[in-house]
Amino acid sequence: MDERLKRQLDFALEIDKEKNIFRQTHLSGHGRQENDAEHAWHMAVMAYLLREYANEEVDIAKVMLMCLIHDIVEIEAGDTYAYDSESMKTQKAREDAAKEKIYSILPEDQKQEFIGLFDEFEACETAESRFAHAMDNLQPLLLNNSNQGGDWKEHQVTAKQVYGRQAKTSLGSEKLFQVIDGIIRENIEKGNLKE
Amino acid sequence: MDERLKRQLDFALEIDKEKNIFRQTHLSGHGRQENDAEHAWHMAVMAYLLREYANEEVDIAKVMLMCLIHDIVEIEAGDTYAYDSESMKTQKAREDAAKEKIYSILPEDQKQEFIGLFDEFEACETAESRFAHAMDNLQPLLLNNSNQGGDWKEHQVTAKQVYGRQAKTSLGSEKLFQVIDGIIRENIEKGNLKE
Repeated sequence: MDERLKRQLDFALEIDKEKNIFRQTHLSGHGRQENDAEHAWHMAVMAYLLREYANEEVDIAKVMLMCLIHDIVEIEAGDTYAYDSESMKTQKAREDAAKEKIYSILPEDQKQEFIGLFDEFEACETAESRFAHAMDNLQPLLLNNSNQGGDWKEHQVTAKQVYGRQAKTSLGSEKLFQVIDGIIRENIEKGNLKE
Repeated sequence: MDERLKRQLDFALEIDKEKNIFRQTHLSGHGRQENDAEHAWHMAVMAYLLREYANEEVDIAKVMLMCLIHDIVEIEAGDTYAYDSESMKTQKAREDAAKEKIYSILPEDQKQEFIGLFDEFEACETAESRFAHAMDNLQPLLLNNSNQGGDWKEHQVTAKQVYGRQAKTSLGSEKLFQVIDGIIRENIEKGNLKE
């Protein structure tokens, strides 16, 4: 087998580990914690399904790809909970080191391509990355809403924190942000989320 | 919220259940059984990563989408193990009923689109569906190979059965079929797979 293909298959096997990186979100039906691979799959399907609501026209293949790979660095860097302000301070440094390490398994051209996609997602300045971020925010909110806000209750998250995170959603989709706003208000009313 | 968006979000929540459909394949590192959502995510990333090896030029967005949705019917129909000949006899009927039920949650246009993609994948007659099938076959083989053929041993699968399944791989990618052929031979030599 040539060197290029060997590196690609080594990478394919390495990313299997993403299935062992668990998030704070629980599956619907008050299920177990979700892992990064499941989250990425769900986001990518939702991106395609909901693409008509993107604020700007998007290259949907690029959006799906960003959704699929955005958490690969967490194999090395671990998951950072969106409402853990201490961990978030070190997140960028941890993920920068991780991306260099994990994407170096790939042939150089693909290493640069995947790092480019990850960096574009993180910067959140293009139409595609903004819509991918909207999915990254909507997906766990849908699950958490279906579980009567169990994840918010467990971590004593406030509405202000949720709105802070969801600010990026409106950059990707005003329409979906309106839905999210409705869900947040409903959960405050029901006592699932502190004001 | 309008009816269209409500149906789309209902579907987005429904497919969360795919994370509870477990396959016979085990994760690398002799891990737990893999679920359908993880498998679909892994296939989609691999499709993008390995697209240069497709026999024919492919619309990679369509391939990724097929990979992402091809097992959604299993939420209703359950997983059918590739080497369980009894279950495979009823697979088509079970999956046809399932696709009608689950995709009816969607607005009519998207129902037809997703069923069309699923049917195209199943028929395995287009360049995209053939490459997606190659991923469906390569992905579990990579994991199983990394686990010294544990899944084959557990189910007493023979090399002939594995070659039977992998026949479709060569329709999608001759190059990747060669890799698979090498892996199969190596596992026969090591005694991980019966001749």
